[in-house]
Amino acid sequence: MRQVFHLETDRVPTHWYNVLADLPFEVPPPRPAPPREGRPRTLNPQLPLSMYRPSIGRSRFVEIPEPVREEYRRWRPTPLYRATRLERELDTPAHLYFKYEGTSPSGSHKINTALAQAYYYARSGVKEMVTGTGAGQWGTALSMACHPYGMECTVFMVRSSHRQKPYRGTLMRLHGARVIESPSTETEVGRAALAADPDSPGSLGIANAEAIEYAARRDRARFSIGSGENHVLLHQTVIGEEALLQMETAGEFPDVVIGAMGAGSNFAGISFPFYRAARERSASTRFLAVEPDACPKMTRGRYLMDHTDYSGVTPMVRMYTLGHTFTAYHIHAGGLRYHGAAPIVSAMYDNGLVEAASYSQSRVFECGAAFARAEGVVPAPESAHAVAAAIDEAVKAREDGAERVVLFSLSGHGLLDLTAYESHLAGNTVDVVPTDEQIQASLRPLVESDETAGAHPLP
Amino acid sequence: MRQVFHLETDRVPTHWYNVLADLPFEVPPPRPAPPREGRPRTLNPQLPLSMYRPSIGRSRFVEIPEPVREEYRRWRPTPLYRATRLERELDTPAHLYFKYEGTSPSGSHKINTALAQAYYYARSGVKEMVTGTGAGQWGTALSMACHPYGMECTVFMVRSSHRQKPYRGTLMRLHGARVIESPSTETEVGRAALAADPDSPGSLGIANAEAIEYAARRDRARFSIGSGENHVLLHQTVIGEEALLQMETAGEFPDVVIGAMGAGSNFAGISFPFYRAARERSASTRFLAVEPDACPKMTRGRYLMDHTDYSGVTPMVRMYTLGHTFTAYHIHAGGLRYHGAAPIVSAMYDNGLVEAASYSQSRVFECGAAFARAEGVVPAPESAHAVAAAIDEAVKAREDGAERVVLFSLSGHGLLDLTAYESHLAGNTVDVVPTDEQIQASLRPLVESDETAGAHPLP
Repeated sequence: MRQVFHLETDRVPTHWYNVLADLPFEVPPPRPAPPREGRPRTLNPQLPLSMYRPSIGRSRFVEIPEPVREEYRRWRPTPLYRATRLERELDTPAHLYFKYEGTSPSGSHKINTALAQAYYYARSGVKEMVTGTGAGQWGTALSMACHPYGMECTVFMVRSSHRQKPYRGTLMRLHGARVIESPSTETEVGRAALAADPDSPGSLGIANAEAIEYAARRDRARFSIGSGENHVLLHQTVIGEEALLQMETAGEFPDVVIGAMGAGSNFAGISFPFYRAARERSASTRFLAVEPDACPKMTRGRYLMDHTDYSGVTPMVRMYTLGHTFTAYHIHAGGLRYHGAAPIVSAMYDNGLVEAASYSQSRVFECGAAFARAEGVVPAPESAHAVAAAIDEAVKAREDGAERVVLFSLSGHGLLDLTAYESHLAGNTVDVVPTDEQIQASLRPLVESDETAGAHPLP
Repeated sequence: MRQVFHLETDRVPTHWYNVLADLPFEVPPPRPAPPREGRPRTLNPQLPLSMYRPSIGRSRFVEIPEPVREEYRRWRPTPLYRATRLERELDTPAHLYFKYEGTSPSGSHKINTALAQAYYYARSGVKEMVTGTGAGQWGTALSMACHPYGMECTVFMVRSSHRQKPYRGTLMRLHGARVIESPSTETEVGRAALAADPDSPGSLGIANAEAIEYAARRDRARFSIGSGENHVLLHQTVIGEEALLQMETAGEFPDVVIGAMGAGSNFAGISFPFYRAARERSASTRFLAVEPDACPKMTRGRYLMDHTDYSGVTPMVRMYTLGHTFTAYHIHAGGLRYHGAAPIVSAMYDNGLVEAASYSQSRVFECGAAFARAEGVVPAPESAHAVAAAIDEAVKAREDGAERVVLFSLSGHGLLDLTAYESHLAGNTVDVVPTDEQIQASLRPLVESDETAGAHPLP
């Protein structure tokens, strides 16, 4: 039975796919943040227009600039595998396919947008990219993408991740980035967070807020973001476009497409092209976003206008959120600790085009370890969420006695997360879930200022 | 300028290449170890004959069993890159190509032989594979290769590496292996080594001796080795066979082929097929084996009959060696701390067909870090030795004002070696070199018992 579906280098997609062209509804537009004393310039005007415009338009396909495509060709197309050994061990009639992004130079899908962004920003005269990173996948990707364009890179890394994953910081520094643990004393946001809680584990919201403030104060520096925004989701569709061709070679079409859900770029990358293809062939394919119990923005959050950063500097967007002041427990899947879901994914979820599920940390590592042993690939803790959901689909298929084609994104490898797996092997993985009260506390200010809140009562 | 040369999956080589068919001399045969009271069974009778025979014969090509080839297809052919950014930064007229084995499931070339060995051993009824590992690349590969064949895996890991690289142990355990720090109290060899020096950093020689003793005591268990032996070198030629096709696509033929030199399987893998091709086209290609200053078996060792393991259980082979009791300083490139060079590589070196060079640890990391920044790939410390030599070739080419085509093997990634790079970034890399007296001490007993020693005076 064929286990691997490679594509030739010359089949790297020429276009990204813009799902806005095919949605049967409008995604609510962002709203500028209310002006506030001493606030730095806001985010949107900072985006290169050549990058921003196509991401809010209705053109179905957006050409990938040739220099970006040339970079992609260094490792793309990434392989699609059929997990035949895992199927055997689960004794399931389901066919489990995974698209593996861990063969990229940065070890995850994040480099797909990092290279694209670096290209657009460098062309617009930017000399320094500044960002926040949770697990470090994004920071790594951006630090690698800046070097070829001669740009500096400064990364605010969430403290809990920086300490749990010392190798990540080293890797970014090795690629020439300056890495700052967040909350830091370098920004007002950071100093305020430290004053409120000197032991704060940090959050991606805080790290991004620090990066925004830091970039605003520096010449020809720009804040860049690794997920959530329309243009980031757009860049990641290269994953699904390849997977479409590969599933065609395999002669199957997925009944369910699964992706881990941080802010949504990985999930969008694998699922949007299949959303288009499923419409075209009137297939009833399901799309499943998987989040951690510890940060349940889709399964327990609400669809409200909120900021994408902790300090409320960014424009407000309508999204499924736990509130921008929500700080998730420091689980190993740092990349899934973000408080909100991308506006496009949120709108699709609200319209019933996308499903969501949440998993406990211990179950995620159990499934990640089983997958590693069977398939020889250690999933990043984030990616292991998709593995857990795929395994559940496989078990259900066995119970139903029905074939089912499952496709999931293995967004990155977990070679820099082995401390987390060591915890798992030693039986030390902890499950922590926010209480209703905690979620209500960070949601309340949003509900009170949101005109549609009546339709979305607090949990 | 084209930077990457992929091969399609259906071009995974069908045959390994046996260099013995093309050597203009005989490689001296091994000699059984002299019998000794209480010594466990010796190594050779333990090898599956179907694996062993072709590795000592004169057939030029050995067919790769289809099940092994199917496994190879999961990630092979590996990419060949041209390091255009590094060329630019070095301002060199040299063309630098590298064959990258780090995209394999285990992260290095070691899996090429691990899968082949697992296949042959499982077919001959073996249920448990036992081995020693230095840096952990080999142990990782073997632990991953055993699972598909339903075999157990036990790994004795050199203590200094086990402590410097805790992630390696986790990775092996995650793939189901039992990992034992060596010297251990589980074997007589280990207990004796600990009695002699409770703080012994261990060595690959000791770890292998422990594994041999341990395997000999267990039912249907076999000791397996990750480098040095003819069959291991044979399996690795899949690297060079692919690189030949890829260099053809690039339209160039190397003036020099470079590989890091532990016991020799990586060096043989990249260079043997080019040795054949260079003969065929009467090219004066050079073949350069690169070792660390801390373990200079080729540049400062001698060509003598010696054991491949620390305790002198294995048959004796004629090789460049520092003596099987030599224990190298615990440098980060644990995979290059082995005391001897593979008999075939040694014979080629002795006959002037191969060159050798040694590098200091600090220079190696300086070059490894420069390569990482330029090319976006962090080399394993072992592989960084080849990078250092390639950079020197590039600099020489600039000084000579002459084009030169350089091909080197980047045998693995360094993502599990970031502690070592952190040391480098912090300026803490230490250079240690054995004294002549140290080398003489471990060589003397061999010289005294070797009839040809007169031709090879002590240093």
